[in-house]
Amino acid sequence: MEHNSDIDILISEVGPRDGLQSVKATMPTALKLQWISALAASGLREIEIGSFVSPKLLPQMADAAELVAHALTLPNLFVTALVPNFKGAQAAFEAGVHKITMPISVSEPHSLANIRRTHQQAFDEVRNVVALRNARFPEIEIEAGLSTVFGCTIQGEVPDDDTIRIALLMAELGVDEIGLADTVGYANPTQVRRLFTRLRRELGAKAGSAHFHNTRGQGLANVVAALEVGVTTLDASQGGIGGCPYAPGASGNIVTEDLVYLLESMGLRTGVDIDRLVAARQWLQQGLPGEPLYGFIPDAGVGKNFSYAKKAV
Amino acid sequence: MEHNSDIDILISEVGPRDGLQSVKATMPTALKLQWISALAASGLREIEIGSFVSPKLLPQMADAAELVAHALTLPNLFVTALVPNFKGAQAAFEAGVHKITMPISVSEPHSLANIRRTHQQAFDEVRNVVALRNARFPEIEIEAGLSTVFGCTIQGEVPDDDTIRIALLMAELGVDEIGLADTVGYANPTQVRRLFTRLRRELGAKAGSAHFHNTRGQGLANVVAALEVGVTTLDASQGGIGGCPYAPGASGNIVTEDLVYLLESMGLRTGVDIDRLVAARQWLQQGLPGEPLYGFIPDAGVGKNFSYAKKAV
Repeated sequence: MEHNSDIDILISEVGPRDGLQSVKATMPTALKLQWISALAASGLREIEIGSFVSPKLLPQMADAAELVAHALTLPNLFVTALVPNFKGAQAAFEAGVHKITMPISVSEPHSLANIRRTHQQAFDEVRNVVALRNARFPEIEIEAGLSTVFGCTIQGEVPDDDTIRIALLMAELGVDEIGLADTVGYANPTQVRRLFTRLRRELGAKAGSAHFHNTRGQGLANVVAALEVGVTTLDASQGGIGGCPYAPGASGNIVTEDLVYLLESMGLRTGVDIDRLVAARQWLQQGLPGEPLYGFIPDAGVGKNFSYAKKAV
Repeated sequence: MEHNSDIDILISEVGPRDGLQSVKATMPTALKLQWISALAASGLREIEIGSFVSPKLLPQMADAAELVAHALTLPNLFVTALVPNFKGAQAAFEAGVHKITMPISVSEPHSLANIRRTHQQAFDEVRNVVALRNARFPEIEIEAGLSTVFGCTIQGEVPDDDTIRIALLMAELGVDEIGLADTVGYANPTQVRRLFTRLRRELGAKAGSAHFHNTRGQGLANVVAALEVGVTTLDASQGGIGGCPYAPGASGNIVTEDLVYLLESMGLRTGVDIDRLVAARQWLQQGLPGEPLYGFIPDAGVGKNFSYAKKAV
């Protein structure tokens, strides 16, 4: 999504997708609708609504089309969805999303274990999805979300060259934007600077978002590094849901509430109102009773010296 | 402390002081001794052993001299203590610490509320302590720990100029090192870069450590900013004990375990062995049963792509 001129950093809220798909319980659709409305009302400009995937595989995501239809009625909201394959892309396109994200594991062992696809099969799927988009849905954006970029639980180290090679291939295949994801919480700030610098140098405007997990508590540290090298779109999830839950304090995705506080404190406008954002947690709590929510700002509140970022003159 | 040539960043472990003084329960001395030994055995080079303060005020700290005597027997350990006043300094000097840290609130309302002293009274105390050191304990270092530098719960904003003025005064009074502390977890990376850059420019070699609290989850993000502008000494506490505990995940000080992982991942040598450091938690758990310990690395473990930093060739 193009940033509006009234924000500096676009936060892409992935809780309804990355968060909910990692939780065993299924949040009732009516509460998801309320939650998504509340997230949008807090000022978030982009929400990943769900995943267009077989409901047999992920029953939590069975209502994706219904959620998209609702999200499209909310003002100023860019509506995205995750799509693992051609069939999902078709359904997402027909539902009318503004953008789809296709995950591609840079680690081939991870790709095989996770979605049972070789790299070649995954790339072919992207090629087919781009062809469908070009033929029938030319306004819809396609993002490739490269995963396991910062390391892989199966392969261990993942060479930067592999990431850049696949990113360039995605651009060549007609993907609009290529983001980098730290799927398993392995990233460190040095690596983040190095990889996003190179991504931007090689891809220019097609270099996309940073998606960090907070499994090892390094999420916001990695955000600082990403900001330094010019990243302007960051994924986060309300309450840090998603990913591998280790207690205490081990959220999955980086926590949207804490991220907004970080960015606004640094003088970077997000468009998000923290009080309204925190208030949106009620729907998540109601929809997933007993599920632990993370984040420091909801408990500690903002500092007495806090003020929202202002537009630079 | 001068860094040894085999580390890049000095971690000053403040758990036995900042941590234990914030906890209501008193950890038995015998277990504190075991804990301090285990922390030193993990490779930590500097430990703030306790606070030389009236046992009526802080009974948790009554055994400071005994702990110092023990810590001085441990190899390669720089032994420091917090000292709020002249009487405490005298006791710490006599106990044989290598360094004392005197806290000075840059916010005068905070100084009055916290230690019932005006700025002038606090500065006079430092002057007297320096005189005592110069006369009778010339090898012992004196650090001023400027607190509420990044904002204050009473005063709100704290101007940078106030911080720098007091830092310069401390140097003039004969203090060896001036560190900056985010007492209440208000700091953000932009502010951290700005203040430490200025501190180093104005004080040169006397510019000291960064002491961050994780009250708002921004601790390691602030570390990344501090590293960028050349800070090489960082305070942290095992298990993140200390400060204001908000649950879940809201530690007080930044967590030593997670900090070591961050630094080593970034290629910065700390001298600390993570497994041994995590093992040291057993003493804290035994000494403070039921007290929540924080940190992601103890639960999540290091990533499969992790390796310790090596000396740059």
